[in-house]
Amino acid sequence: MTRTLGPWVIKGTARVYQSPWIEVREDQVIRPDGKAGTFATVRMKPGVSVLALDADESVYLTSEFRYAIERESIEVVSGAIEEDENPLDAAKRELREELGCEAEEWVELGVVDPFTSIVNSPANLFLARRLNFTATERESTEIIETIKVKLLEAVQMVMDSRITHGPSCVLILKINHYLNAP
Amino acid sequence: MTRTLGPWVIKGTARVYQSPWIEVREDQVIRPDGKAGTFATVRMKPGVSVLALDADESVYLTSEFRYAIERESIEVVSGAIEEDENPLDAAKRELREELGCEAEEWVELGVVDPFTSIVNSPANLFLARRLNFTATERESTEIIETIKVKLLEAVQMVMDSRITHGPSCVLILKINHYLNAP
Repeated sequence: MTRTLGPWVIKGTARVYQSPWIEVREDQVIRPDGKAGTFATVRMKPGVSVLALDADESVYLTSEFRYAIERESIEVVSGAIEEDENPLDAAKRELREELGCEAEEWVELGVVDPFTSIVNSPANLFLARRLNFTATERESTEIIETIKVKLLEAVQMVMDSRITHGPSCVLILKINHYLNAP
Repeated sequence: MTRTLGPWVIKGTARVYQSPWIEVREDQVIRPDGKAGTFATVRMKPGVSVLALDADESVYLTSEFRYAIERESIEVVSGAIEEDENPLDAAKRELREELGCEAEEWVELGVVDPFTSIVNSPANLFLARRLNFTATERESTEIIETIKVKLLEAVQMVMDSRITHGPSCVLILKINHYLNAP
């Protein structure tokens, strides 16, 4: 059934690939310039990214081998939102699972979209403060190292691309601005 | 042929979808915990994102309907790197095509990865200064509005999620830090 999507017309759609983590759809479209074509999009579960900040301005990062970029990546705590969860509950769960950490204070710092033309998978950003550490509950597939650095060192790691994961870069720079902007 | 990828073992790989813009591969893997499974990744052309900054601290953003997130998105000038290009040449071309602008001064501000576990498509970030405007050479599929705001207003737009495109958020906050950090 034909429908419009902004300046696009979608004549039909087909799911061309699906796994538990991603879905790829190919649409038959009329483009904004009136020409016919196809447009493929990738849908992944929405996610959360959390930066845990200690009273002494230390933050907790993780280093893990990331499959798609084929190397270790230093990132804030991140994960997918499950179907029965709201973003804050997912953030609390991921912080507990990855760092063994509960936080008494949560600040919502907006949303980031990884690739707006092709990928649908918004990441919700959170600052977690007033931390209490217990024990981690990591999944067995995950080999994760925890890295504790000062917030300003994390900012420097973003500036010189030691950290490149998009939501991690945005969250670290947003928190630095949130805490330190005049 | 079996190969290792960090803590993963890849037993085989199949291309399950391809278009001019994306390629989806499904690998047969042995996961870090020793269990067999499949892992799908999405490859897109590497890209560039450019923020043009005027002598009066104005920056030039674009607003365009973005297909995957199904709404208008305010972003810095962005596009894919073509096969015969290096990142800087792609950045110069995109700035010329989208804004009709040449810049005499270029600052490289690193790389951002949109989704490190599943997507391979790094974006190279640039600040462009000392601008000269000529005429735009936009592609016919693109309906783009240009928005000129002060850099600090662009930072505020990132902070309150009026801008959510990942590389745009990172580049705007990096430039603000680069220019204004003590």
